[in-house]
Amino acid sequence: MTDGSTGDDRVVVALDVGGTGMKCALVRPDGSVAHAERHPTDAGRGPDAVVRTVLAVAEGLADRARAAGSTPVACGVAVPGVVDEAAGVAVWSANVGFRDVPLRTLVGARLGLPAALGHDVRVGGIAEARLGAGRDARHVLFVAIGTGIAAAHVVAGSAAVGAHGAAGEIGHILVRPDGPRCGCGRPGCLEAVSSASAIARRYAELAAGTPPDPPATDPVAVPTGTMPARGAASAADVAGRAAAGEALAGRVWREAVEALADGLATGQALYDVDTMVIGGGLARAGEQLLDPLRAALHDRMTFHREPRLVAAALGDEAGCLGAALLALDTLERR
Amino acid sequence: MTDGSTGDDRVVVALDVGGTGMKCALVRPDGSVAHAERHPTDAGRGPDAVVRTVLAVAEGLADRARAAGSTPVACGVAVPGVVDEAAGVAVWSANVGFRDVPLRTLVGARLGLPAALGHDVRVGGIAEARLGAGRDARHVLFVAIGTGIAAAHVVAGSAAVGAHGAAGEIGHILVRPDGPRCGCGRPGCLEAVSSASAIARRYAELAAGTPPDPPATDPVAVPTGTMPARGAASAADVAGRAAAGEALAGRVWREAVEALADGLATGQALYDVDTMVIGGGLARAGEQLLDPLRAALHDRMTFHREPRLVAAALGDEAGCLGAALLALDTLERR
Repeated sequence: MTDGSTGDDRVVVALDVGGTGMKCALVRPDGSVAHAERHPTDAGRGPDAVVRTVLAVAEGLADRARAAGSTPVACGVAVPGVVDEAAGVAVWSANVGFRDVPLRTLVGARLGLPAALGHDVRVGGIAEARLGAGRDARHVLFVAIGTGIAAAHVVAGSAAVGAHGAAGEIGHILVRPDGPRCGCGRPGCLEAVSSASAIARRYAELAAGTPPDPPATDPVAVPTGTMPARGAASAADVAGRAAAGEALAGRVWREAVEALADGLATGQALYDVDTMVIGGGLARAGEQLLDPLRAALHDRMTFHREPRLVAAALGDEAGCLGAALLALDTLERR
Repeated sequence: MTDGSTGDDRVVVALDVGGTGMKCALVRPDGSVAHAERHPTDAGRGPDAVVRTVLAVAEGLADRARAAGSTPVACGVAVPGVVDEAAGVAVWSANVGFRDVPLRTLVGARLGLPAALGHDVRVGGIAEARLGAGRDARHVLFVAIGTGIAAAHVVAGSAAVGAHGAAGEIGHILVRPDGPRCGCGRPGCLEAVSSASAIARRYAELAAGTPPDPPATDPVAVPTGTMPARGAASAADVAGRAAAGEALAGRVWREAVEALADGLATGQALYDVDTMVIGGGLARAGEQLLDPLRAALHDRMTFHREPRLVAAALGDEAGCLGAALLALDTLERR
């Protein structure tokens, strides 16, 4: 702990670096937010420029804390992709362009403070489990559903990292052996059926009258270039149209929910949690997602104990709050 | 630790109680076996009689240790089914008939020693991870394939138990949505396709000329009662016939291996381990199982890091050794 600080004036600097924007904050030891700001990532400038921005924003936040009479005591940074949390290295990220960036060391040296680096979904899970929708449970699975699908298995406030920093990749478990090909290259992954982008794509395909399952040997046969405007709907649009009674949207939504329930049932068989917290962009559909998802999951529970299924409570601030919690954890360990 | 004992003469009493037999041993603190014996479980006598036998065998082992100049210092018992390890209660077991039996308290009181109760597959996984095929790895998934399929996720020598004592149920994850119905009631579970009993059943069905996938609405259509003798083959027989070039056996074996690879790939996506240890009766097929399984798992790894896939090293003694390790752990915690 920095000399001269008291429990009252301490804050940590927290950054959640995404492909589009950075969510940044000064967070008190009790998890409350003293100050929040957002910056564009501009990942197109390349990883070196992004790192310079991260360091400048972190330093600016520490200066702001001092100017306000607070004492910055640590810094936490969350990034997407593959993260080696033990080494503090951003190993790989498609969205931000990181490749083996020793971000923890860079941030710590720039600020002269203890620093921590975490994976965005894992720290989001930590925040939901400690401060958010899972705060009453010891065993929590946080599932973030957006462009992709990923999970964090959090037990007693700590997220499982795995042997190579890749635990919790629930988006890439097989749910539909005859299903669409995933971005990872395999057919039938959960992410290829139930992510927000998969829902939008599936709706567009069906609306355009293309065959439901184009032969994998001839992907060119899908005339996406001639797609009519009525097919251009986001997952949120599909949810809305399904709620309004449109048959096609209803079918796409149901298929996604059924596959998602299969994925969550697999997660429950392997992890056996008390509570599943559903976050990410798709969770904004609220009970329109959770109600049928709960029913479909219930149908799949035989001998297993059924987990409580709840919406995330912290919205898109979960990653930033989780980065702050990681920073606070470094202080406890000292 | 018992007064007067030295590090050299200490042993723990260990019992692995299965539906058919009990594997029992006196085990030294270094994991070496001082004495081993086996007894029938005779589960048909009912759970009370089984508990009496467990207590009598445990007491007999402790007496034998003392007679040999050793000092019994703790007792560990492994049982199948649902086990509340924190409370020391055998919650439920179809094979042995246990229902809410406070086995840890009963054994501890009878022997006057610290006692531990564990789940058979989880303690088997602990033994393989600490003393067996996973001893060089920190993150291990032990998968036992026999009549059923179950797994233990062991990190740094401890097995994940889950919120309700049900973690690791890899036999009940969905791999074939159009596949055969599982004993648990759901269609397409891994156990319904790749367990030793599923392999034998599938071979018998195909050999009898029944349709490969009888409609689920009319299970009576499968004339198992009229099955010809050539269909009555164990999973080991199917493996042998496949190796000898029999087409039908080859097909059944391949289907089982492919589904198993799907299940292990899901396990890797969620757990991210260094090493997968394959045990249980089916693992006796050795490289005839592991070779094609490794290739099929390799095909399924895209962005994930591929785990090492090895055969279990401790055979059917893993559960008994794991019970001994649990007993030793109780001494460390005191």
